[in-house]
Amino acid sequence: MNILIVGLGLIGGSFCRTIKKHTTDTVLGMDIDQNTVNQAVESGAIDRQANFEDISIADLTFVCLYPQQTIDFITEHASQFKPGSVVADTCGIKNRIVSNCEKALLPYGVHFVGIHPMAGREFSGFSYSTDSLFQGASFIVTASKQSNPDAVNLVTDLAVRMGFGEIVRTSPEQHDKIIAFTSQLAHVVSNAYMKSPTALYERGFTGGSFQDLTRVAMLNDKMWTELFWLNKEPLLYEINTIIAHLSQYRDALLTGDLATLQRLLYEGSELKKQDLKANGKIK
Amino acid sequence: MNILIVGLGLIGGSFCRTIKKHTTDTVLGMDIDQNTVNQAVESGAIDRQANFEDISIADLTFVCLYPQQTIDFITEHASQFKPGSVVADTCGIKNRIVSNCEKALLPYGVHFVGIHPMAGREFSGFSYSTDSLFQGASFIVTASKQSNPDAVNLVTDLAVRMGFGEIVRTSPEQHDKIIAFTSQLAHVVSNAYMKSPTALYERGFTGGSFQDLTRVAMLNDKMWTELFWLNKEPLLYEINTIIAHLSQYRDALLTGDLATLQRLLYEGSELKKQDLKANGKIK
Repeated sequence: MNILIVGLGLIGGSFCRTIKKHTTDTVLGMDIDQNTVNQAVESGAIDRQANFEDISIADLTFVCLYPQQTIDFITEHASQFKPGSVVADTCGIKNRIVSNCEKALLPYGVHFVGIHPMAGREFSGFSYSTDSLFQGASFIVTASKQSNPDAVNLVTDLAVRMGFGEIVRTSPEQHDKIIAFTSQLAHVVSNAYMKSPTALYERGFTGGSFQDLTRVAMLNDKMWTELFWLNKEPLLYEINTIIAHLSQYRDALLTGDLATLQRLLYEGSELKKQDLKANGKIK
Repeated sequence: MNILIVGLGLIGGSFCRTIKKHTTDTVLGMDIDQNTVNQAVESGAIDRQANFEDISIADLTFVCLYPQQTIDFITEHASQFKPGSVVADTCGIKNRIVSNCEKALLPYGVHFVGIHPMAGREFSGFSYSTDSLFQGASFIVTASKQSNPDAVNLVTDLAVRMGFGEIVRTSPEQHDKIIAFTSQLAHVVSNAYMKSPTALYERGFTGGSFQDLTRVAMLNDKMWTELFWLNKEPLLYEINTIIAHLSQYRDALLTGDLATLQRLLYEGSELKKQDLKANGKIK
């Protein structure tokens, strides 16, 4: 089939490379930056550059842009997609995207599927894209009340062929709640962690824990601001929750209530242990 | 020389194995658990079991116990150590340890050196000890006003032979301030992170960031309670600092001040970038 990738950044570029590696589908690529498109053609990541007319020949389109750009692109070109074809996005939030894009595409008989490939890197752009980024990663596909089952299956089948490790189906609302915790909060905490004045003196004093806690501190501030804003309520809940918990340890230490401090640590440790067990990481 | 290791847990056991692997020194081991000692002998981690009389034949003694136990052991046996010999501990905090142990040992002409090998695992005990735990890790050696330079050199030279990657010299006070940030805060945050009710639903929704943020959440609650308590002020400062920073992101998101939110993210990202550059991880 003809697969169109709109936006050849880290995710879009990696989609192109991975699809080319694992399938015989035709991959067309589009990007506002002509140099990026040239790079994509030269590296064999795409079969050829797509122009706006090609929107109508795609059987499956992945829009790999920032959230608002994604909504804008799909809304603007809604009438050009092939009726019966499938359009998917790859944004890190889903509720707003899915509702807006479904509304734009349904009148034209085009099926929208919101997905979230759970992989990324600290760096952005096509240059950092690889054909192994998604290897073994989770592929989240969101089904709304208006989703077309065949469209969801088409996207899911491709994900399996691409080498994703696990396919997770959920609703856009549930996705956003969980992602606020597993991904967005991690980026906020990691970023905030770097702001202690003590960070200037860390050299030589770090085992793995500082590195782990701050690995995702370097981030695309423009993209994440947009993602956070579009998922405001769930993320606020998570930030408030961790502040409340951190305050408990702080208060126990401050008052010298070591029994409580130890209990707090034990409880967190047990939750992690249960989590590792549930994920088959330990017995 | 004769090296005595007191306490054959994860760190003590790994010290034995690493010294045996890289040097021809004689390693004697002592532990309150006879099974552990037997395991250490059988696995070749120590040359033989040490009894209390052996304290006086050791040229270098590493006490690898919990902080209070370390102080108690050294104080109790102060008169038994060989005059001119060196005693070191491996605790994660140094100020209280160094001042107490120097006070106990100086009257007997025994030199104390506080060290901190920057390596660990999520699991405790001799069974998890390895001869590669310290490979490339930082070895922090603290010099106080009363430190004997030859004693510090003896310990440092051994660390180099053991395969530590970097030797960092600092004062006990500076060590404790920085470690409150790079290690203790990491454990508190990681542990607190697990306590969101949303954690129960993370399966399938995690890329690397959740795993990284919570890797050190599973911990030895008894040991860390003691370490936190013995480093109360620096750790309180770090917990309060990250709570204050997290509150800034929270407030910007709450009021929809996206310019501030993006600036906060940009600043944290830049700090991480500078940190990676300073450590030679990126150009």
